[in-house]
Amino acid sequence: MDGAREADVGYARLDLDRADRTGDPEVVFGPGKTPAQIVDALSHLHRAHPDRAVLATRTTAEARAACRAALPAARIDDIGRTVTLGPTPPPAGLVAVVCAGTSDLPVAHECAEVVRVFGSEPDLVIDVGVAGVHRLLAQRDRIAAADAVVAIAGMEGALPSVLGGLTGVPLIALPTSVGYGWHLDGLTAFLAMLNSCAPGVVAVNVDNGFGAGVAAARIARRAYRP
Amino acid sequence: MDGAREADVGYARLDLDRADRTGDPEVVFGPGKTPAQIVDALSHLHRAHPDRAVLATRTTAEARAACRAALPAARIDDIGRTVTLGPTPPPAGLVAVVCAGTSDLPVAHECAEVVRVFGSEPDLVIDVGVAGVHRLLAQRDRIAAADAVVAIAGMEGALPSVLGGLTGVPLIALPTSVGYGWHLDGLTAFLAMLNSCAPGVVAVNVDNGFGAGVAAARIARRAYRP
Amino acid sequence: MDGAREADVGYARLDLDRADRTGDPEVVFGPGKTPAQIVDALSHLHRAHPDRAVLATRTTAEARAACRAALPAARIDDIGRTVTLGPTPPPAGLVAVVCAGTSDLPVAHECAEVVRVFGSEPDLVIDVGVAGVHRLLAQRDRIAAADAVVAIAGMEGALPSVLGGLTGVPLIALPTSVGYGWHLDGLTAFLAMLNSCAPGVVAVNVDNGFGAGVAAARIARRAYRP
Amino acid sequence: MDGAREADVGYARLDLDRADRTGDPEVVFGPGKTPAQIVDALSHLHRAHPDRAVLATRTTAEARAACRAALPAARIDDIGRTVTLGPTPPPAGLVAVVCAGTSDLPVAHECAEVVRVFGSEPDLVIDVGVAGVHRLLAQRDRIAAADAVVAIAGMEGALPSVLGGLTGVPLIALPTSVGYGWHLDGLTAFLAMLNSCAPGVVAVNVDNGFGAGVAAARIARRAYRP
Amino acid sequence: MDGAREADVGYARLDLDRADRTGDPEVVFGPGKTPAQIVDALSHLHRAHPDRAVLATRTTAEARAACRAALPAARIDDIGRTVTLGPTPPPAGLVAVVCAGTSDLPVAHECAEVVRVFGSEPDLVIDVGVAGVHRLLAQRDRIAAADAVVAIAGMEGALPSVLGGLTGVPLIALPTSVGYGWHLDGLTAFLAMLNSCAPGVVAVNVDNGFGAGVAAARIARRAYRP
Amino acid sequence: MDGAREADVGYARLDLDRADRTGDPEVVFGPGKTPAQIVDALSHLHRAHPDRAVLATRTTAEARAACRAALPAARIDDIGRTVTLGPTPPPAGLVAVVCAGTSDLPVAHECAEVVRVFGSEPDLVIDVGVAGVHRLLAQRDRIAAADAVVAIAGMEGALPSVLGGLTGVPLIALPTSVGYGWHLDGLTAFLAMLNSCAPGVVAVNVDNGFGAGVAAARIARRAYRP
Amino acid sequence: MDGAREADVGYARLDLDRADRTGDPEVVFGPGKTPAQIVDALSHLHRAHPDRAVLATRTTAEARAACRAALPAARIDDIGRTVTLGPTPPPAGLVAVVCAGTSDLPVAHECAEVVRVFGSEPDLVIDVGVAGVHRLLAQRDRIAAADAVVAIAGMEGALPSVLGGLTGVPLIALPTSVGYGWHLDGLTAFLAMLNSCAPGVVAVNVDNGFGAGVAAARIARRAYRP
Amino acid sequence: MDGAREADVGYARLDLDRADRTGDPEVVFGPGKTPAQIVDALSHLHRAHPDRAVLATRTTAEARAACRAALPAARIDDIGRTVTLGPTPPPAGLVAVVCAGTSDLPVAHECAEVVRVFGSEPDLVIDVGVAGVHRLLAQRDRIAAADAVVAIAGMEGALPSVLGGLTGVPLIALPTSVGYGWHLDGLTAFLAMLNSCAPGVVAVNVDNGFGAGVAAARIARRAYRP
Repeated sequence: MDGAREADVGYARLDLDRADRTGDPEVVFGPGKTPAQIVDALSHLHRAHPDRAVLATRTTAEARAACRAALPAARIDDIGRTVTLGPTPPPAGLVAVVCAGTSDLPVAHECAEVVRVFGSEPDLVIDVGVAGVHRLLAQRDRIAAADAVVAIAGMEGALPSVLGGLTGVPLIALPTSVGYGWHLDGLTAFLAMLNSCAPGVVAVNVDNGFGAGVAAARIARRAYRP
Repeated sequence: MDGAREADVGYARLDLDRADRTGDPEVVFGPGKTPAQIVDALSHLHRAHPDRAVLATRTTAEARAACRAALPAARIDDIGRTVTLGPTPPPAGLVAVVCAGTSDLPVAHECAEVVRVFGSEPDLVIDVGVAGVHRLLAQRDRIAAADAVVAIAGMEGALPSVLGGLTGVPLIALPTSVGYGWHLDGLTAFLAMLNSCAPGVVAVNVDNGFGAGVAAARIARRAYRP
Repeated sequence: MDGAREADVGYARLDLDRADRTGDPEVVFGPGKTPAQIVDALSHLHRAHPDRAVLATRTTAEARAACRAALPAARIDDIGRTVTLGPTPPPAGLVAVVCAGTSDLPVAHECAEVVRVFGSEPDLVIDVGVAGVHRLLAQRDRIAAADAVVAIAGMEGALPSVLGGLTGVPLIALPTSVGYGWHLDGLTAFLAMLNSCAPGVVAVNVDNGFGAGVAAARIARRAYRP
Repeated sequence: MDGAREADVGYARLDLDRADRTGDPEVVFGPGKTPAQIVDALSHLHRAHPDRAVLATRTTAEARAACRAALPAARIDDIGRTVTLGPTPPPAGLVAVVCAGTSDLPVAHECAEVVRVFGSEPDLVIDVGVAGVHRLLAQRDRIAAADAVVAIAGMEGALPSVLGGLTGVPLIALPTSVGYGWHLDGLTAFLAMLNSCAPGVVAVNVDNGFGAGVAAARIARRAYRP
Repeated sequence: MDGAREADVGYARLDLDRADRTGDPEVVFGPGKTPAQIVDALSHLHRAHPDRAVLATRTTAEARAACRAALPAARIDDIGRTVTLGPTPPPAGLVAVVCAGTSDLPVAHECAEVVRVFGSEPDLVIDVGVAGVHRLLAQRDRIAAADAVVAIAGMEGALPSVLGGLTGVPLIALPTSVGYGWHLDGLTAFLAMLNSCAPGVVAVNVDNGFGAGVAAARIARRAYRP
Repeated sequence: MDGAREADVGYARLDLDRADRTGDPEVVFGPGKTPAQIVDALSHLHRAHPDRAVLATRTTAEARAACRAALPAARIDDIGRTVTLGPTPPPAGLVAVVCAGTSDLPVAHECAEVVRVFGSEPDLVIDVGVAGVHRLLAQRDRIAAADAVVAIAGMEGALPSVLGGLTGVPLIALPTSVGYGWHLDGLTAFLAMLNSCAPGVVAVNVDNGFGAGVAAARIARRAYRP
Repeated sequence: MDGAREADVGYARLDLDRADRTGDPEVVFGPGKTPAQIVDALSHLHRAHPDRAVLATRTTAEARAACRAALPAARIDDIGRTVTLGPTPPPAGLVAVVCAGTSDLPVAHECAEVVRVFGSEPDLVIDVGVAGVHRLLAQRDRIAAADAVVAIAGMEGALPSVLGGLTGVPLIALPTSVGYGWHLDGLTAFLAMLNSCAPGVVAVNVDNGFGAGVAAARIARRAYRP
Repeated sequence: MDGAREADVGYARLDLDRADRTGDPEVVFGPGKTPAQIVDALSHLHRAHPDRAVLATRTTAEARAACRAALPAARIDDIGRTVTLGPTPPPAGLVAVVCAGTSDLPVAHECAEVVRVFGSEPDLVIDVGVAGVHRLLAQRDRIAAADAVVAIAGMEGALPSVLGGLTGVPLIALPTSVGYGWHLDGLTAFLAMLNSCAPGVVAVNVDNGFGAGVAAARIARRAYRP
């Protein structure tokens, strides 16, 4: 790593060349960091990359308040718990972020913002759970028009299977930990998605709106024809 | 149990009063029994209850061949692996036995025969998996006309959730061990069904076509108005 | 969903036609909602359906206090943690809600209220655990007179097996998370119920008094002969 | 261990002083040994301890045939898969070996023979599953007369809970791997027994008729008053 | 249960004949009860059975303070979290309660008090973990003199295996949830004890000092010769 | 589904319009089908779609022999266990199929053939496990030139994490059941891939070469610029 | 243990001869002890062994504050949560403590201090996760110069596999509970390390910096040539 | 990989420089390879490295017969299932391979041969299970004289804990899948070893005699002083 530019901010060495290597923006993972550390990390990375967005995820309400005060230019999503600083790239491609229930909104919002920061455009489609299949069918054409789909669901996690039978667009299943009783913190949805009877469904870990957003944006950007 | 009639057939005491107590026919569980033992048990129970059906489940091909030879009056289902001897009761009520895929047919056939023997009429609806949701919607009215529904699925087990949103008929979810990769011998479908977002779904154990059939027949019989 | 009536209450679109489609009343699931949101949702749904009950489940003490203040007509069960607004339907059929121990009372009360709201009459039978089998036998005739039975138990979950040998009434097993030591948050009772040696036992998820109540009411209503 | 007498039979050093140390007879565990090795081990141990029984467990049909031919004095149980050579001690105390179903007979027979070889008298009580609780109640006095009880059950494993409410005799729960569907090779019964609502129930591993027999015989021998 | 004497204390029916049926004293399980309820239940049961002890287990510090104030005659163990009211029976037999580490003391104390209340005499042997096997060997004769042994250990749960090779006294393994890292809340010790290479080891659930004490006292009482 | 063309081949209704709806070719899943059924299904589907490929997966050696005899035009891969009949589409885009070890070759070959049949071009890169990281680095540019990557590994499943740090190409992790000791039939690799520290990794189920191939081809086709 | 010197400090007997028997220093495990108990235990052990270090691990901030006040000579690591009192031995051998991410620093610091107290010299190498494999390769020679390596990682736990392919130095894998979503509190990393494709990797339990440090120091001390 | 010498033997590229990089001999893993492939691989590697040993592990009886016929110079261990070709290095250091029971001998023999091939000397100590702790104590000095210890046990896996309290020699715990009932294919022993109360115990995967042998030899070689 001889030539790698790195910045030491005290509690971590930030790898400033990573973006060049993978084309990805820098991301600050919120949990375990103080509000001041999050403000500091966002500021530092923003100065290093003033021309592109840096993102903090899974921030606490306290951290977002600190960002609001210290970083007035930041775009903050209180549902998705994200803070974004700097200009997002011009969107390339369209990602349908499809959501089974209102309890899944935090994960869906996080995913949508990640899609935006990673260079694509999210289209958030909500309240289309499988127990009301007509609502889902009513959104079919809108979803099929996307370059990638993220299908989000907790509980029994059936949404990707139904969606996967309706369209051949690349489809990423995103299980959430929403559920009651013995659902194993999202394992039920997770296993269901990995065992989907619809071919070609791929999945990320439980509640991993970040990972799904990164993958979907990469797929959509490459599919995009201006 | 002073007054209880029992029959000792060598390897088990058969409880001949059980039917009187619960209204259920006698059933011989096939696994672990030799073909001769199955023939013998069916004959013995039939002689004790000549006026109603006795049933053997999960029989091997060898056992069914032995039954064909020794019990020419028996009705034999090679897909469902059942052997029935004696008259089934006049059917009361209708049970829709709904099946996600052809791999689920053995469980579905077993369930349907149990429904018949336990006094109701099965209506087998096949090939309506959730990845082809239009096929399922096309059968909606037929399913909603039943007095009870058994929704059978392996893999991600989503069928009961979609069905549960389409009708308020009592619905029994029956997971099967059909699947590939890490599906945990049906646990995935099982957990999905217990975590259904459709209210009021109840479930039986994996591949338990017998239990689902008994429960569905009991429900349908009571709902039946001649 | 062209013709569907929907109401947007800010944090969710309420599906006002659902009751017409499935015959079910509207239910507000308490966890994750503020007391004000619960009061608001109940009021909104009640105005849309003044002629039938709406129900909130798993409410906190704070939410129930807010309902007591804002909705004086509401019926509130502090053990079962339910709030009901509007007239319950005339009861059709009888559901025996049978309870192994006093620790299971919250789940039993929730189940009984759901039975009532979904149109049947609950009969709560308590303190009949299997380690005191004579107590249970003393209640046999009362239980056998019902149109459906909900058998509730934590720990080893044996109650449905014993009950299932005593009566042929449709029986829903409802495991609870009551237990000590390594009981896996109710999985032990749950597995025991799914592996019951009594035929025809069906089960719902751990502590799912709501689901068991919905299923039992549906079964009992259909079995009811005025 | 300087003074310990040991015998080297080629594939293992047999600890001939163990019986003196713990009061236990010698036991040859069958699995993984050839018929010839089992015959050889029994012979060798019998010559070392001509005045007391040696026991082989979990033997194959082939091994038992070899024992029948080579050791005509041996007592062989084809259901319990045991071979015993040499005189069993005069029985001290009584052990009720109670069995939920005929599928549990191999484990029950093994347990009963171990009780005999370890110095107590077994009383085998069969076909008393909890789904036919009247049969069990009919055997209550017989079971309560024992010095120790072994309660054997597969499936939901409820027998020890019901028995534990009927008597205060020391009770060992012995789960078996008998079951259908998702029962986890006996884990369901095992967990149920460890979570019994009856106080003082202790358990051994799945199908461990040997361990239950050893423990029960030790308890019954000490309780015995000639 | 026609003839059964029962007392209704508002939140539960107490079964006052249970002691007659099983010979066991009454026990109040503390968790989930208020200090006032525990005081009330102990008082009520004590008035019903003034001649023998009643016991409360797993009490909080608050509940014990309330008992100290309201029930000055109670015997209170702050380590074992037990409260006992009324005279314990004259001890019959000796139970060695053997403890691997100081972290296991709460469970060991609870077990010892249960032994006392259930009619036997506990002998608490501490600090004899298997990683210091000489300490354990130094206590061998003391342990072998008991009528029953309870072997308590967390972490790898090896103590019963070592003890079981040293003595033929009936041995109850009691796993605790003491451990670090991935130990599964005591499952590791629990599984180890159920898989002990020493024959005849029986086990209770994790941290179940109550169950182990009940079982050990029953065994020791019967073995006792005055 | 009024207008849907279906073909009844006796043991299943084949959905001949599925390809039109999702753009996917027809696939025959081999397990559970006889060699004759596989030959028959391939022939039937080929006649219905003479202008595009139909594929059979997970075939046995017997089934492939039957196909070789009956379908001389078929392309057969004995390592990947696939049989393909009919012309594959002109390849659009490039999929790097990267393989950690020789034991993973069957899954890798299956995946590569699926990529081909679903319209893209596979580039099979083998023997690049993480314990020889220099071999992997030597292939970096070749892999980064693809439109999608499938990273296949068993055992600890680390390959996607290392690859994900080297390139921003959409990356599908494909765990295999290759391993020794306690690896849980591929769960270890599966969990590792879902917990990858490289952002944007998505995964399919264990050994699911088919699913990974479908997803990769869909992504690569859309990214392809002729 | 007749000759063993022991000290009774009220809540535990300290085994003062243990160090002589195994060559290990005394260690106070912090959890469950009050700050005063930790100060007391360190003081007591230090007086008994003034010539060598005693160590407290997993201390709370409160306990460390108490140690700072009462034991000014103590060396305190707030990241690693350790308190050391008394002189560490002259270091023999070198242990590379290699760390995948900043979240792993607490475990890494604890491990390094244990290495020091147990008589070897730690070399802490940080920020070398596998998703940035070039950083890791840049540290290869430094790591290969050690006498033992501890490879620390959470999430997918791939670091030991990559390191194990780069050097033949004895390598201890130390999984951490760092992760997001369904990672099972470190089980994912743990399983990955036990299934490493690099030969000769050994592992300790999740977050067990203590155990890894003890093992590494023992190995390095013996390898050391002055 | 520019300078790497590789050999293509048809079904795998053999990495002939690996030994130079890590100091390890070449090993052929037997499962999944035909006898001819094993003979071929050993021959090929032996010609490439005539001056040092190559090893095949987990060979079948058929493969060993083929090696006996084709490679008369090979050293073959039928218990440990290994085949070694070429001179082993002069042994440096001593590894005690300690074995709890005769069922563990195949794993112990494999481990011992791996120690030999990787350059150290194994000392096999057998029949020292914890249920006969005096046998183990009798071997204490012999074990403490080694440079590394491999402690092998199935069932409850207690041996490393007892050994770890007796000596400070680096200790590798090797769990085996030996057990009866619910032992989870060696997981019980595995978990016990990872939760050992003796400090500094490290572990390998279940039955991984190869990995334990590699690790132990590396440790012992470095500790060796000629």
